[in-house]
Amino acid sequence: MDKYYDRIIHGGDYNPDQWVDTKEIWDEDMRLMDLAKVNSATVGIFAWSLLEPEEGVYNFGWLDEIMDKLASHGKKAILATPSGARPPWMAQKYPEVLRVEESGVRNEYGVRHNHCLTSPVYREKTAAINRMLAQRYKDHPALFMWHISNEYSGECHCELCQKAFREWLQKEYGTLDRLNFKWWNGFWSHRFTSWDQISSPKYRGENHVPALRLAWRRFTTQQHLSFYLNEIAPLREITPDVPVTTNMMRLYKGIDYHSFAPYVDVISWDNYPDWTNGDNTESANETAFVHDYFRSMKDGKPFYMMESTPSIVNWKGVNRQLKSGVQELSAIQAVAHGADSVQYFQWRKSRGGHEKFHGAVVDHVGHENTRVFRDVARLGAVLEKLDAVVGARTTAKAAILYDRENSWAVDFFCGYHRDRRDYDKVCERWYRAFWSRGIPVDVISADQDFDRYDLIAAPFLYMVRAGTAERIERYVRGGGRWIGTYLTGIADEDDLCYLGGFPGGGLRKVFGVWAEETDSLDEGEYNLVSFGGRTYRAEYTCDVIHAEGATALGEYRTASYYAGTPAVTKNAYGNGEAYYVAFRPQQDFIDDFCGGLIDEMQIQPDAAFPLPEGVSTRKRGELLFVMNFGGEEKTVVLDREYRDVAADRTVSGEITLPENGYLILR
Amino acid sequence: MDKYYDRIIHGGDYNPDQWVDTKEIWDEDMRLMDLAKVNSATVGIFAWSLLEPEEGVYNFGWLDEIMDKLASHGKKAILATPSGARPPWMAQKYPEVLRVEESGVRNEYGVRHNHCLTSPVYREKTAAINRMLAQRYKDHPALFMWHISNEYSGECHCELCQKAFREWLQKEYGTLDRLNFKWWNGFWSHRFTSWDQISSPKYRGENHVPALRLAWRRFTTQQHLSFYLNEIAPLREITPDVPVTTNMMRLYKGIDYHSFAPYVDVISWDNYPDWTNGDNTESANETAFVHDYFRSMKDGKPFYMMESTPSIVNWKGVNRQLKSGVQELSAIQAVAHGADSVQYFQWRKSRGGHEKFHGAVVDHVGHENTRVFRDVARLGAVLEKLDAVVGARTTAKAAILYDRENSWAVDFFCGYHRDRRDYDKVCERWYRAFWSRGIPVDVISADQDFDRYDLIAAPFLYMVRAGTAERIERYVRGGGRWIGTYLTGIADEDDLCYLGGFPGGGLRKVFGVWAEETDSLDEGEYNLVSFGGRTYRAEYTCDVIHAEGATALGEYRTASYYAGTPAVTKNAYGNGEAYYVAFRPQQDFIDDFCGGLIDEMQIQPDAAFPLPEGVSTRKRGELLFVMNFGGEEKTVVLDREYRDVAADRTVSGEITLPENGYLILR
Amino acid sequence: MDKYYDRIIHGGDYNPDQWVDTKEIWDEDMRLMDLAKVNSATVGIFAWSLLEPEEGVYNFGWLDEIMDKLASHGKKAILATPSGARPPWMAQKYPEVLRVEESGVRNEYGVRHNHCLTSPVYREKTAAINRMLAQRYKDHPALFMWHISNEYSGECHCELCQKAFREWLQKEYGTLDRLNFKWWNGFWSHRFTSWDQISSPKYRGENHVPALRLAWRRFTTQQHLSFYLNEIAPLREITPDVPVTTNMMRLYKGIDYHSFAPYVDVISWDNYPDWTNGDNTESANETAFVHDYFRSMKDGKPFYMMESTPSIVNWKGVNRQLKSGVQELSAIQAVAHGADSVQYFQWRKSRGGHEKFHGAVVDHVGHENTRVFRDVARLGAVLEKLDAVVGARTTAKAAILYDRENSWAVDFFCGYHRDRRDYDKVCERWYRAFWSRGIPVDVISADQDFDRYDLIAAPFLYMVRAGTAERIERYVRGGGRWIGTYLTGIADEDDLCYLGGFPGGGLRKVFGVWAEETDSLDEGEYNLVSFGGRTYRAEYTCDVIHAEGATALGEYRTASYYAGTPAVTKNAYGNGEAYYVAFRPQQDFIDDFCGGLIDEMQIQPDAAFPLPEGVSTRKRGELLFVMNFGGEEKTVVLDREYRDVAADRTVSGEITLPENGYLILR
Repeated sequence: MDKYYDRIIHGGDYNPDQWVDTKEIWDEDMRLMDLAKVNSATVGIFAWSLLEPEEGVYNFGWLDEIMDKLASHGKKAILATPSGARPPWMAQKYPEVLRVEESGVRNEYGVRHNHCLTSPVYREKTAAINRMLAQRYKDHPALFMWHISNEYSGECHCELCQKAFREWLQKEYGTLDRLNFKWWNGFWSHRFTSWDQISSPKYRGENHVPALRLAWRRFTTQQHLSFYLNEIAPLREITPDVPVTTNMMRLYKGIDYHSFAPYVDVISWDNYPDWTNGDNTESANETAFVHDYFRSMKDGKPFYMMESTPSIVNWKGVNRQLKSGVQELSAIQAVAHGADSVQYFQWRKSRGGHEKFHGAVVDHVGHENTRVFRDVARLGAVLEKLDAVVGARTTAKAAILYDRENSWAVDFFCGYHRDRRDYDKVCERWYRAFWSRGIPVDVISADQDFDRYDLIAAPFLYMVRAGTAERIERYVRGGGRWIGTYLTGIADEDDLCYLGGFPGGGLRKVFGVWAEETDSLDEGEYNLVSFGGRTYRAEYTCDVIHAEGATALGEYRTASYYAGTPAVTKNAYGNGEAYYVAFRPQQDFIDDFCGGLIDEMQIQPDAAFPLPEGVSTRKRGELLFVMNFGGEEKTVVLDREYRDVAADRTVSGEITLPENGYLILR
Repeated sequence: MDKYYDRIIHGGDYNPDQWVDTKEIWDEDMRLMDLAKVNSATVGIFAWSLLEPEEGVYNFGWLDEIMDKLASHGKKAILATPSGARPPWMAQKYPEVLRVEESGVRNEYGVRHNHCLTSPVYREKTAAINRMLAQRYKDHPALFMWHISNEYSGECHCELCQKAFREWLQKEYGTLDRLNFKWWNGFWSHRFTSWDQISSPKYRGENHVPALRLAWRRFTTQQHLSFYLNEIAPLREITPDVPVTTNMMRLYKGIDYHSFAPYVDVISWDNYPDWTNGDNTESANETAFVHDYFRSMKDGKPFYMMESTPSIVNWKGVNRQLKSGVQELSAIQAVAHGADSVQYFQWRKSRGGHEKFHGAVVDHVGHENTRVFRDVARLGAVLEKLDAVVGARTTAKAAILYDRENSWAVDFFCGYHRDRRDYDKVCERWYRAFWSRGIPVDVISADQDFDRYDLIAAPFLYMVRAGTAERIERYVRGGGRWIGTYLTGIADEDDLCYLGGFPGGGLRKVFGVWAEETDSLDEGEYNLVSFGGRTYRAEYTCDVIHAEGATALGEYRTASYYAGTPAVTKNAYGNGEAYYVAFRPQQDFIDDFCGGLIDEMQIQPDAAFPLPEGVSTRKRGELLFVMNFGGEEKTVVLDREYRDVAADRTVSGEITLPENGYLILR
Repeated sequence: MDKYYDRIIHGGDYNPDQWVDTKEIWDEDMRLMDLAKVNSATVGIFAWSLLEPEEGVYNFGWLDEIMDKLASHGKKAILATPSGARPPWMAQKYPEVLRVEESGVRNEYGVRHNHCLTSPVYREKTAAINRMLAQRYKDHPALFMWHISNEYSGECHCELCQKAFREWLQKEYGTLDRLNFKWWNGFWSHRFTSWDQISSPKYRGENHVPALRLAWRRFTTQQHLSFYLNEIAPLREITPDVPVTTNMMRLYKGIDYHSFAPYVDVISWDNYPDWTNGDNTESANETAFVHDYFRSMKDGKPFYMMESTPSIVNWKGVNRQLKSGVQELSAIQAVAHGADSVQYFQWRKSRGGHEKFHGAVVDHVGHENTRVFRDVARLGAVLEKLDAVVGARTTAKAAILYDRENSWAVDFFCGYHRDRRDYDKVCERWYRAFWSRGIPVDVISADQDFDRYDLIAAPFLYMVRAGTAERIERYVRGGGRWIGTYLTGIADEDDLCYLGGFPGGGLRKVFGVWAEETDSLDEGEYNLVSFGGRTYRAEYTCDVIHAEGATALGEYRTASYYAGTPAVTKNAYGNGEAYYVAFRPQQDFIDDFCGGLIDEMQIQPDAAFPLPEGVSTRKRGELLFVMNFGGEEKTVVLDREYRDVAADRTVSGEITLPENGYLILR
């Protein structure tokens, strides 16, 4: 099922449990939600201490009341499981539920998250409260979706986790001999002779074995996932028809969210871009990249933007207010890229605590006569006109390979340019060549299907896991185009180097090049590369390569001893082509290089009219979204007559988009 | 009693206990003290290991000898209690006397301070040694004053302190319900159900609850105070007529020194300004602010400058030597602002250890033929001419509200501009508008009496504790003028936000404005504000406000969406007026704004002649101090004939003050 | 014995234990070693887990095979003891072998080194495995030298070490009274009454007593040394004729390597300079300084360059590739300065782990057709022509006093300019005045013989240990020339200040000056000093001195109150002269000042022809090395006909050295 409601969800995190002593505010909230054209509320995220004030003593009365109010006002309740924070009594009685950091010392009670991923007690407690919630509300008319915990993250180093880690290793590697080989434990005399000798990476223990660090991240991912599966088991049993999601964080690296994708019904994520009051093109590209990353996780199925701010955040160094229009455009972008919701953290500012100055629809002043409230209500009216896109998927012919495990490997290896790996930024740059042309593009991991694409750019693919090289080879042989760059195919899934020449694992023949050396450039230093009659800058990292069958499309112009050697190559392989960009390019090269391929391959953009710099388009269902992030007025010339859905009018010809303006065209 | 001696005390920390094996140096010290015109010595600060070399075995012989020498040379002994550092044997036998830091691990023996504030053993030991000292020296002719411990500071997280903290919380909040409400513990599910669930704030526990952090600072203040009261009990009993002080540190934020004021006879503090060899106007203003902060603590009663350096310090990154004259001017400034002493750390450089390169009257070379010694002796001769000011209080019609608890709240809240709160600097800027005009001004906390002033500037008064808003309202209604700024009246004493519109707690009607939003500006970014025909820069933080009865005196000129809205307002309220400066101004605005009020209210400066930039004046008793901090020659034109007390001559008309020069006029 | 082989050793760290499952690579290694003209391999450094896979179960078969292969290919084996890293089983069974850091918490198993220096278990285990190795290979034809452990470094704070530290203190100080006096424990009440009260310096204990920190460094040095002596005991017993070395690290400050000198047969060190692709003059000077530091440790006896990279390192922020020629010149410099070996870390890149991207002779590609391999082989051919220098010592008439214990004291004292002590850099600058003129110079500690030199520069000799002042006095009286600078003779071996005027300990009369004050200058600020008709910049630190018999050769020109006072003095004392440079000079002053002395004293350079900037020479045996570090072509004009040993030709007159080029002339 691609949609669970026939409207765009508009709502946000709602904490009536903080105002349980002033219930007049609850009624005011309902009145204000109607005014703001909000149709949903996410409740109970951190409510455990109110739901279960003492062990085994439950207090659902307040939640019954809220659920009833929501239902009677026609609001969808997204009901949270409360495991993101636990009551103090639980930590006091069962210290094992608290997390142990890398230091090896158990945390005290405090903040949120902060729970052991393995603790049987905590798993039992979460399953029990979740079961209670499901049983109580399974037939409640407001219940719409489950919101599992909150922003799963972090890791735990307690003894229970160590034991689980060792068991996981045993399953993963089978024998110590195999683990010793794959981790190259002959180095520094680390051959283990008993599983008990292995412990999580830590600064006062083992912190120099990349394979251990990779294994620990994989284990932590699995432990979060199994914690999640334990959470949803009673929900699936009791409310099999209620969809389940858990809110994820941007490009968080602590775990690999891809592992969750098969087990959630809806991908959801919390979107806090770095918007400014000026030109937001860069941030818009970055955010589009992330939308597409999450959208691609379930093959283009619509996702939820579970959190965003209606105004300001409180956790940056300098938390600015934004002009009206910026957050609205941000919301429209989410929908354009596949979101079926626009949700806020938070509905109402909390009165005390750490996040009381985080933006909310309702401010401390308590009424609707604020700029922010008016902005939200105006957006709500627009969203009500977008039923047509709900559930609509997007497909793309091009993809950027952005791989979480590769990002770990890239961060962990010691050598070459250590200060500027910038894997996220590098991938976002390649993404931008497509985004700025209005071409739909997926953002996929190395484990996702390649064959649905005509063109895949896989920058800095340092780690090539078992089977991946074969899949790339098959893809290219079958007619696909593959773009690789410097430091591709260096190591396998355990950061064990490929022998016999890079790019390794069989890719040397696909690319038709051998990368003999990798050079590093200081900040501000550049090599020049000639390509297609122009000269470009190479920065930070440059492979020194030999063409072995590939054709040189570009050469190093200035680079001491390797000037004149190939810098860009193309290799015809089977029915496809493999390109090797031996250096780290700037945006201009990427745009020109990809632009050439796009033209040659005739990959079509969503809009049939040209886009000024800073204007982004995305087609979703029958609607074409045209968004101006350029920080100033922009003019587009439409190719035909359209219906302007938001303004409910017909438009054609030259149209001026104000700063932060947008059009939704049918 | 406002004075304890009829002369300015001139002396400093003296550690004969470090030279107990070379008593010829003691005799040399007496000779040199006479030469330096020093009339006092502070002894025994860190002498515990010599006074009580083994538990219960006392060794007072050396101190008897020193006290006798001091008496026979006519020196006043300021006798310290030794609790600032303890003997190793005590830490070894009673580990509980050592401090536990936030990490939760007990410190080992070392450095100084480093003691638990709660430990019954340590309190017993300090009371016992203090009693011994009092009994032994109660009738000694040299005994002049008690110096309790040294620079009380820091905190302890041991179990004894946790228990005391919980008891303090129980007394403070009565019930857990009340604490849960005031700390807003519904947020992140933190409702406590037992007092035992609460622990001190720490990085690996709870560190995100501002109310807990505030409570911990208050508790720590009280624990230091009760430690102090335990120290002085035997002294008060045995030597009821000997005044008691404890030396405080500049604008130290770890505790609120105001709590000590009722329990010390003399406020004393340690003054280490950032003097340079050039223009010292900025440092002079900052230091004057601190002098007035401490002077105001006991309603203007003279204080002691217990420490200062005669030359150089050793703890900065770059420890410069200063030209002769700079330290002399610094000492004169202290006296001008209410100090009845000029005291040094230290009399003689220690031979080893951490502070051996800190400046001293007597250097390692050991004789009087040094530049520093000569400078001190010359100053000593001047101080001997200032008997007239001893005991003289200063009164002021204007005050700056600088509140320690507010400074904590300002540091702790998360949001808006987090990098540039700068509460000290902000208050010093408002102070400077008065200081640079030679107008006496007090520096008071929010708990001190407002009614004695005509004008109070209370910048950035984020925290408005229970009762404070009412007192401000009464003050303005009664005819006072009150200046508030951006982010005023946001939260109560537990950092719980005021609802219903800022400035809260009832201040909205006093100011006649509602602050809807607070914007933040990046470093180097400015909004322009028009006021009185000029344009000023607003930086870092700007409230967006609505006048609700107040008159706009100034407007934002450039600030995206809030350009044209009020930036400075004035509200007639009762018989007084309340001003709201919605932004963070630079010095020029503050000078012009306050200058206008000063002129209008006809608040008079101490000097009846105009002051060039960098020249500061302060009247004390019958003497007018004129001090040149401007880093170059300055000329003043006297309004009449004066007696130049230091030079013992009559002066009038145009007088040239050399760089770092001063006049003391009667 | 000054030489152990009649050729320059050419080889490096070789880890066949990492490739034990792919023995075909072992055979390939032998083939490649022949091609690279490598005649030696250092084996077994981290092989313990393969040598003793279970406690008491030994596995020498693989090493037998490797030793046999090396022998049959005519390679010298430098056999390592494996204590640099231990097998996991040992840490698991005997946790005491692991190190305890300053935190007081025992490390977990991990990384390398990381062992307790005191643990009886670890000492027993290392002695046992060393004995096994010696017994097994004592008669093996490949066995050439012992390589003990690896880069001894770090410290351990466990209870065993604390106990050993207290015993060491007792031996060192005899009584607590003496220790309390020397550590000036009267300060802050630290008089110890039991040895058990003393513990190692730590951040959460005692960290403000410089004498404790000095003692701890000395103890740590001794503990490393006794660990080393325990390691070599069985080797000396079983293989009395096999030389022993241990590889040291550049200017590592954790221990004083001088203590090892009497107990190693060959000094060896690991050389990783900061070479660039441009002008390397600065790095060449720094590296020459270090070569001479190690060379001087055993009175000029040839040393081994045990490690260097043939290409790149992996642990910097930006790891650059270098042009061919740079590493070759670096190797030649080592030989010129006294090295009898050119050795690499590493022969073959490891496939996994932390150092897999560190440069190696054989890359992951596995064959000889790489730029790096060819460079190594070409150098190998040159080294084969240098038999003549093997064993040749260098003597010098000038020395730089660079003292490890003084470097500790300089780092530990609190005061004056704390941000820019730069002891290494300061000494390297004085060294450069000689190096750039091609004058041989030793780099000695304060404990080495002064009398063999005509001129000694001892910059920033803050610590003057017992007996040193007397030795300096005797040296100057006997006709030597001594150069001292600011902050000379301040404290003794326990950082206890000299009383009675600096420079202390008797040096005041030798220099004929009294330093009254020490001033500090901010970054970018300078005083001007006139000397010899020119003006120079003084930076960071300036003594204010009085000539007491010395002649002023230079004066401060701009320095507020001390302008016009002496800045450079010369004192005729006995038959010699003592110079005092009161400030921290830049290179130009040092060059001119030392140049004047060199000319006056007629100290002769190695080359009889003039050297362009960036060209360095060093004579060794009968060969004169001429090396171009200037980053561009340089021309020298030879004074006579020479034999060019590397090119095997006769040269004379004007010779052009290419960038990174060199000549070896006979």
